[in-house]
Amino acid sequence: MKHLRILLSLPVLFLVATLRSYASEATGIGNLSAILEVQQYNRAIHIMAMLLVGFGFLMVFVKKYGRSALTATFLLVSVTLPIYYLVSDSGMLGHQKSPIENLILAEFAAASLLIAAGAILGRIKMYQYIVLALLFVPFYIFNEWIILDDGMGIMIGNFADTGGSIIIHSFGALFGISAAISLTTKEEFKTNIEADATSDRYSMLGSMVLWVFWPSFCAALVPVEAIPATVVNVFLALCGSTVITYILSTSIRGKINIADIANAALAGGVAIGATCDHATPLTAIIIGVLAGAISTIGFSILQSKQQKFHKIIDTCGVSNLHGLPGLFGGLMAIPVVDGLNIGSQLFGIAITVVIAVVSGLISGKIISLFGHRKEAYNDVEEFEDVEEEIATLKKVA
Amino acid sequence: MKHLRILLSLPVLFLVATLRSYASEATGIGNLSAILEVQQYNRAIHIMAMLLVGFGFLMVFVKKYGRSALTATFLLVSVTLPIYYLVSDSGMLGHQKSPIENLILAEFAAASLLIAAGAILGRIKMYQYIVLALLFVPFYIFNEWIILDDGMGIMIGNFADTGGSIIIHSFGALFGISAAISLTTKEEFKTNIEADATSDRYSMLGSMVLWVFWPSFCAALVPVEAIPATVVNVFLALCGSTVITYILSTSIRGKINIADIANAALAGGVAIGATCDHATPLTAIIIGVLAGAISTIGFSILQSKQQKFHKIIDTCGVSNLHGLPGLFGGLMAIPVVDGLNIGSQLFGIAITVVIAVVSGLISGKIISLFGHRKEAYNDVEEFEDVEEEIATLKKVA
Amino acid sequence: MKHLRILLSLPVLFLVATLRSYASEATGIGNLSAILEVQQYNRAIHIMAMLLVGFGFLMVFVKKYGRSALTATFLLVSVTLPIYYLVSDSGMLGHQKSPIENLILAEFAAASLLIAAGAILGRIKMYQYIVLALLFVPFYIFNEWIILDDGMGIMIGNFADTGGSIIIHSFGALFGISAAISLTTKEEFKTNIEADATSDRYSMLGSMVLWVFWPSFCAALVPVEAIPATVVNVFLALCGSTVITYILSTSIRGKINIADIANAALAGGVAIGATCDHATPLTAIIIGVLAGAISTIGFSILQSKQQKFHKIIDTCGVSNLHGLPGLFGGLMAIPVVDGLNIGSQLFGIAITVVIAVVSGLISGKIISLFGHRKEAYNDVEEFEDVEEEIATLKKVA
Repeated sequence: MKHLRILLSLPVLFLVATLRSYASEATGIGNLSAILEVQQYNRAIHIMAMLLVGFGFLMVFVKKYGRSALTATFLLVSVTLPIYYLVSDSGMLGHQKSPIENLILAEFAAASLLIAAGAILGRIKMYQYIVLALLFVPFYIFNEWIILDDGMGIMIGNFADTGGSIIIHSFGALFGISAAISLTTKEEFKTNIEADATSDRYSMLGSMVLWVFWPSFCAALVPVEAIPATVVNVFLALCGSTVITYILSTSIRGKINIADIANAALAGGVAIGATCDHATPLTAIIIGVLAGAISTIGFSILQSKQQKFHKIIDTCGVSNLHGLPGLFGGLMAIPVVDGLNIGSQLFGIAITVVIAVVSGLISGKIISLFGHRKEAYNDVEEFEDVEEEIATLKKVA
Repeated sequence: MKHLRILLSLPVLFLVATLRSYASEATGIGNLSAILEVQQYNRAIHIMAMLLVGFGFLMVFVKKYGRSALTATFLLVSVTLPIYYLVSDSGMLGHQKSPIENLILAEFAAASLLIAAGAILGRIKMYQYIVLALLFVPFYIFNEWIILDDGMGIMIGNFADTGGSIIIHSFGALFGISAAISLTTKEEFKTNIEADATSDRYSMLGSMVLWVFWPSFCAALVPVEAIPATVVNVFLALCGSTVITYILSTSIRGKINIADIANAALAGGVAIGATCDHATPLTAIIIGVLAGAISTIGFSILQSKQQKFHKIIDTCGVSNLHGLPGLFGGLMAIPVVDGLNIGSQLFGIAITVVIAVVSGLISGKIISLFGHRKEAYNDVEEFEDVEEEIATLKKVA
Repeated sequence: MKHLRILLSLPVLFLVATLRSYASEATGIGNLSAILEVQQYNRAIHIMAMLLVGFGFLMVFVKKYGRSALTATFLLVSVTLPIYYLVSDSGMLGHQKSPIENLILAEFAAASLLIAAGAILGRIKMYQYIVLALLFVPFYIFNEWIILDDGMGIMIGNFADTGGSIIIHSFGALFGISAAISLTTKEEFKTNIEADATSDRYSMLGSMVLWVFWPSFCAALVPVEAIPATVVNVFLALCGSTVITYILSTSIRGKINIADIANAALAGGVAIGATCDHATPLTAIIIGVLAGAISTIGFSILQSKQQKFHKIIDTCGVSNLHGLPGLFGGLMAIPVVDGLNIGSQLFGIAITVVIAVVSGLISGKIISLFGHRKEAYNDVEEFEDVEEEIATLKKVA
């Protein structure tokens, strides 16, 4: 067969070129690879829905802070996308990528940033979110460059993290918690961030949008042949974490907690990221169930025991949803991914943890220079009220 | 031409194989059929948005039951998908299918289950929804196997139901109503399920999400060439039912009823399912208008006349939205689909009705063993209140 | 090369036909152009999400008018799509188009109509929206036919407006404002349309859905090779307008106005339409920033100074979001698009403005024959209240 291929190769290659040129003219397709890039673009749109509608509405639960959470989401995404895109498009971070690949990588950066912001939500002013974004993006790019592009030549082998369990979820969570620690004084730990009693359906909307589009997040840059299996794995992992969240939330607390459902149900998506294109359906379900269990235990037990570290410095509980399930997912690559270099995987995780914590601590200190305070912010400090606005209009009229 | 093809076939087939192997290497496409499966996957994602955000928010209207409806939706989907997927993937239900085909069929099962659940929404506890799912899925698979895979060898010909008017919508509605009948005692018929006065915009959100993605539901497994015409037919049918719903709702009631709009507007999508890939645009509009009329008359006249059978045992009115329009759609295949075996179509509808009713009655009885009661459930019986939760946190702190 | 191609052309063309026929059978692909049409269909679905969920929820802010705004959105879309589709599919408007192209063009017409309706939202009864749609669509088709299909033979060259800055956004806004002027008497100018204090999160939902899917709107009919660059440009323009809206809204008003954020953040999408497939990433950001600035200044300064012309006759401020940014975007094509005929671009803009204003004035007069009034409508005049409905049910029971 091999000899035959060599024999055929020259005339056939010529024929392929001629045929493709004719096929292009006949069908108007131009370049078949453009079809693949448009398919990637569909996934990019799905990820964008996760970033704005998903993360935005999941964070709406803070009392008197709904508008702020949504506006902050809008700003964090709008600052991150152009910066990351222009840097990546310049080619300075390694090999040149296609426009849609750059866009998807920029969205990944924005996702990680939104996770980080979840840890300090409700404690900073609106312009401080922009400062947060400007500090976060270079550190995120630096870590990504070291791990995925072998930036400093210190990675010793491949790193399994297709859907970003480590470099997106864990990085964002650890950065955010570290920033919260150096942003908040001990005294401030005493004041709780309260939840809005009527926001449950908005939070569930955000959660469901994240759930629905999560497969496109994990499969965004996966080769076309591997997408079907990847997609199925992600959905099965999410199903696993959703069912176990209901069971454990009810068992531990006695009653269902809607915040557990809205958050821990997503832990399967976080954890399957590292192995989404390698797991079998059954493994995916198991990873989802375990991640959901870790997350629910985090929200229902750790959170109320270790008040100092949860929901006080970590408003959205990102350590329970993204931090622990992300690390768990990254470690699960060791048994699941064939031929993985264990040392390389552990080394990559360790580097990410160190960079996230150090850069988070530094960033928190810098943000605190712009002011910080004890109580949670109330929307009306920064936003015009509708009544106020109407009054102004009437006075003018 | 035929002789020429036979003459050419051997060398050409060899050339095709060689060319495709070269084309793969040259363009990185690998397998063109993978592109088609990724396109199917896009439709699978759209259907998932319908299941969670669409059905979930459409069912939010029950008073003091919003969180429960959304959590139940999450659980019903998360229990159904893995069970159906693993069964179908095992190949025990006939020919082996691709991962995404299995996923889409699993989503269809979940859609039918959510319709069934709509009939008893607000009358059962959260874990009973899981019991419902575990009972429903085998019966649904059994019916699907008989009708579509000629499971027992009793189907006498083809059956037109591409978008599931009969095997998804009518089956779910009849199963749900039958379950409700054997689940609810006569006394319980007297207590109404009340609607939440502020939920109208959430219901409209659910309705609009269903409307927007409905073409992907109907075209999910349609061959690529037939997708454009299918999609257009579905949208046109939905337009027809939406306009007629407004006209009839206003004419019959004197005022517009927002629940009519949110529900009956979708009847065109239900009814066009059986003929979506065969109808002409004009036929599609007519089917939509008739289905919308049937549904609106169901909601506005039948419902208030036959209190015993509507909105008391049928919380969401699934008989008006899915039952009648589904049966109507299945029957419309007889005049619309060329070369259809009328006996086969009627026989398939009859089998589905019988299996749905019998299995629904059995399932209702079994679910009632886990407890049932007169009044609708109130969220707070099963869910932690935010105030409660905050109080707990404060005590611990 | 050219001689070689001619030499090869006959046998190769025959071979291509044979190969494609075999490839079809082997891969089940049928026609590769079908794959492209299904990709277009994905964008058509995204646009539908913008029309219903996007525009619908963005318009929910009017006090006691939430249900009406959503129902009106449903009706406007459902009336427009079939009319436009059947007219365009008949081929009477120039060359025959594919089903999905006709669908997308019908969606564009519906988008323009929803913009027009935004200017008079809350001032007309539900059936008057249907009258509005029936008047609007022929005028819209007439303008589109003149500009894009050279309908009357008066266009002197090409017209750059891929994403519809002029023929969709500006046309709709100018039609709507003109209709509002001839629909509303001087006395009625004094009564303000008030905003609902609790609707901010719904408006942000609508805004975010528009933001997320906007690239599919602009790239809907773009050739497959040009889609990646187009998509990136649209996102970058939206990022630019979002950031500048926050900065200017805060600077001008002292506090953030959530309506500015929900609306002006989208101005980048409106303005980039004319140049989305020609701009560079950097140009796209600049166009977005300038459009966001124009829109924010419109909402925050012009609106309160010129009470007579804003938010009184223009309920949703469509002149600030679609009118001015649309015209700005159309003019930006002159420096951005290579080889553009300046006279042709200006002429096309001028024709659109004239047709929109004249047809809007006429339509407003006609709609006013069906009744108009001073105060904004209240939902309860036209809608059954839930309490009312429950009471009826109880009486019957």
